Amino acid sequence: MLSKAEIQSIFLKSQSEIYNDWKEFLTIKSISTDPAFKDECLQAASWVHSKLQKIGFDAKIHATSGLPLVVAERTGKVGRPTVLFYGHYDVQPVDPIELWESQPFEPQLRDKRLYARGAQDNKGQVSYFLKAVETLIEQNALNCNLKVVIEGEEESGSSGLSACLNQLKDHLKADVLMVADTNMSQDGRPAVTLGLRGLVALTVKYKGPSHDLHSGMQGGAVRNPATELARLIASFHNPDGSVAVESFYKDVIEPNLAELEEGRRNQMQDDEAQRLLGVRHLGGEVRYPSIIRIGLRPTLEINGIHGGYAGAGTKTIIPSEAFAKITARLVARQNPDEILTALEKHIRRHTPEGIQLEVSEQKAAGAALKVNIDSPWVMKATRVLEEVAGVKPAYVWEGGSIPVIAKLSEISGAEPLMVGFGLEADKIHAPNESFGLDQFKQGFTYTALFLSGL
Amino acid sequence: MLSKAEIQSIFLKSQSEIYNDWKEFLTIKSISTDPAFKDECLQAASWVHSKLQKIGFDAKIHATSGLPLVVAERTGKVGRPTVLFYGHYDVQPVDPIELWESQPFEPQLRDKRLYARGAQDNKGQVSYFLKAVETLIEQNALNCNLKVVIEGEEESGSSGLSACLNQLKDHLKADVLMVADTNMSQDGRPAVTLGLRGLVALTVKYKGPSHDLHSGMQGGAVRNPATELARLIASFHNPDGSVAVESFYKDVIEPNLAELEEGRRNQMQDDEAQRLLGVRHLGGEVRYPSIIRIGLRPTLEINGIHGGYAGAGTKTIIPSEAFAKITARLVARQNPDEILTALEKHIRRHTPEGIQLEVSEQKAAGAALKVNIDSPWVMKATRVLEEVAGVKPAYVWEGGSIPVIAKLSEISGAEPLMVGFGLEADKIHAPNESFGLDQFKQGFTYTALFLSGL
Repeated sequence: MLSKAEIQSIFLKSQSEIYNDWKEFLTIKSISTDPAFKDECLQAASWVHSKLQKIGFDAKIHATSGLPLVVAERTGKVGRPTVLFYGHYDVQPVDPIELWESQPFEPQLRDKRLYARGAQDNKGQVSYFLKAVETLIEQNALNCNLKVVIEGEEESGSSGLSACLNQLKDHLKADVLMVADTNMSQDGRPAVTLGLRGLVALTVKYKGPSHDLHSGMQGGAVRNPATELARLIASFHNPDGSVAVESFYKDVIEPNLAELEEGRRNQMQDDEAQRLLGVRHLGGEVRYPSIIRIGLRPTLEINGIHGGYAGAGTKTIIPSEAFAKITARLVARQNPDEILTALEKHIRRHTPEGIQLEVSEQKAAGAALKVNIDSPWVMKATRVLEEVAGVKPAYVWEGGSIPVIAKLSEISGAEPLMVGFGLEADKIHAPNESFGLDQFKQGFTYTALFLSGL
Repeated sequence: MLSKAEIQSIFLKSQSEIYNDWKEFLTIKSISTDPAFKDECLQAASWVHSKLQKIGFDAKIHATSGLPLVVAERTGKVGRPTVLFYGHYDVQPVDPIELWESQPFEPQLRDKRLYARGAQDNKGQVSYFLKAVETLIEQNALNCNLKVVIEGEEESGSSGLSACLNQLKDHLKADVLMVADTNMSQDGRPAVTLGLRGLVALTVKYKGPSHDLHSGMQGGAVRNPATELARLIASFHNPDGSVAVESFYKDVIEPNLAELEEGRRNQMQDDEAQRLLGVRHLGGEVRYPSIIRIGLRPTLEINGIHGGYAGAGTKTIIPSEAFAKITARLVARQNPDEILTALEKHIRRHTPEGIQLEVSEQKAAGAALKVNIDSPWVMKATRVLEEVAGVKPAYVWEGGSIPVIAKLSEISGAEPLMVGFGLEADKIHAPNESFGLDQFKQGFTYTALFLSGL
């Protein structure tokens, strides 16, 4: 077993080599949501594959119905626990590109943060994990069996991995499922994530006239698809911020007193929101603390709305059509397929005569996940995190979704252990994503200490 | 005075030359709403100027605060009436360009219609007017004084012409103001337009977080600008289709029984709407006939709405901002500035905490106009139109706006006489704008007959 001091001294010595691997990984434009970047995604898989082989893993690229997985293992330690690590090599799109201060795929170090698409999510967190494992192997201090699955479709629904989970079942058996795709707590303490939300998505298009009409010559006699789509969207929420779709809350469990208490203790303050998110006032279901709204309450968000003229000046039309891209985040016990059905039903009921409705890209991407706070793996991670940071870690429920985790946990028989080192300031999914060098170092130290101490 | 038969025989003989001039005019990309096309607008002004000089007018290009006017006259006929003709050489933008079946600035003849941006609005109607005048001069049959003003900012608010009207006052004095920027009636009869609506415009931007947020990590705690903008837009109308903005109808006069009767007689049928507009059901204030909704009722339309992701697949963000481009059409007695103020007040009152509001591009483009059905000029035009078409013309109120007409009428002392040969099928302001050759010919015949008979 290596001590914290030994691990940090090794990190200090090989720092520039560690960062170079991470930077190289970040130059690959592996955007999985856009088919135009398929070749770059294959290149990212290949990069991860070589890296694992070089470290000493038995690794292979596993074809799926979508983008390939990298599956690797280093086993044979009889009587030792088996750890399964999950990560992803794909990243989010980069638009609006004009808001980036440096090129998204040319990593740039500014003020002790590395800026690039994927700098944190998830290439940064995968990078410190791989580097920690490499270090342990070099130091002959890896005392467990280790399996790795790195997929390429996390940002687009993990359909390839999901479809071949049964086929990989025997290769994935493990005791604990380590995931480093989560955040620290708002106050900067490390955190163990005890919950993830589920996700469903759909696109709604409203078609009105067969062509853009003159807003003077026809305005007043024709339903405007942009106006009607806005009315539909307005019907999604109640004035108190809750979702107005019938049956949406049917299976949702109210947070208990302990959870509300934890939520009140950790909730975001207005000045913090202003600094990190650039909003003066928070929104949503105001009767819950903000952290509960994000972690233990479902939501419905408009990710995009578009229709009609967008240029300078005035174009006096009634647009022919308008569309909205919509996602809902789900909590434990909500069934994704049922929610999708409830949403579609609401949409059909609220679509007026004279508007032609098209619902497309429906995706029941995954259910939510909740982990028991008393688990031995959570306890062990807690002790390691306290050693790394010098403070007790927080327990959080993260609002994001990693839909495949619930399925991976079920198939592998491994208990999820979600410890990641993200912060709001990383701006993942947005322009100018970055990851702090100090966050990276904490991730490296935690991983090495945890794995060498098993 | 020329007879209808003489005019039509001349038209038949010089048809191809007549059409060539029109086509040449249509190749000039004179989009006034987009500053990128300024040079093309100047070129269009110069084209009109040369044409008028060649015909025999004393013509000049008159600089304004915006795009130049072409001002011309051919006077000196003492004791004869003076006609002022108004038209415009600018056109609407062409997007969405991918929906055009032929290039918008390469006129193409298909099935007896000429397709191009501006084919009708207003280059087509200006073209038959100029050709008719040229013919009368050649035949020595122009028996009145004729003044012409062709501006280049009709599609973008006519601010240049409006600003120099006082300066041009003496040059514009006339008895009748001919405008050929209007339509025939829905059933294909020629029409005298007795009303035009006014117009105001504004752009509303909602800013939320300083950057796009992750809809999982922050969704539920932050107001979504796209959702909030949709809620604002939904607040603009009542369930019965009327506008819900306070004071919006303050000065609106209810249509009288004769107007309602005329409206019921001429209103669009559902099968006609389906064929021409591609909508199965009409919308708007259902308690009025459609033609009254368009002609004598004010409206509020969303011309465009945009925010967040628009690409393929899912991008799980809370967009940082969203905006809508909005116009209202006004009727007689509504004051454009007051309406703009009422709209802004409504918008401010409906903007929630946590959203930063930006109202921009406010434009009180012009008041509405109503003409007396008993005027001698309307009577004379009625007789000529009946001779041209063989049926009694319709009297209509057009929903579109030519804001400068009211001002031009006041300054020149001339009574507006609005007779144009547009049809719904022309799809002006939309992709695949066109003008029927038969409509063009009717316009030519009417103009020649009317002017030679004064």
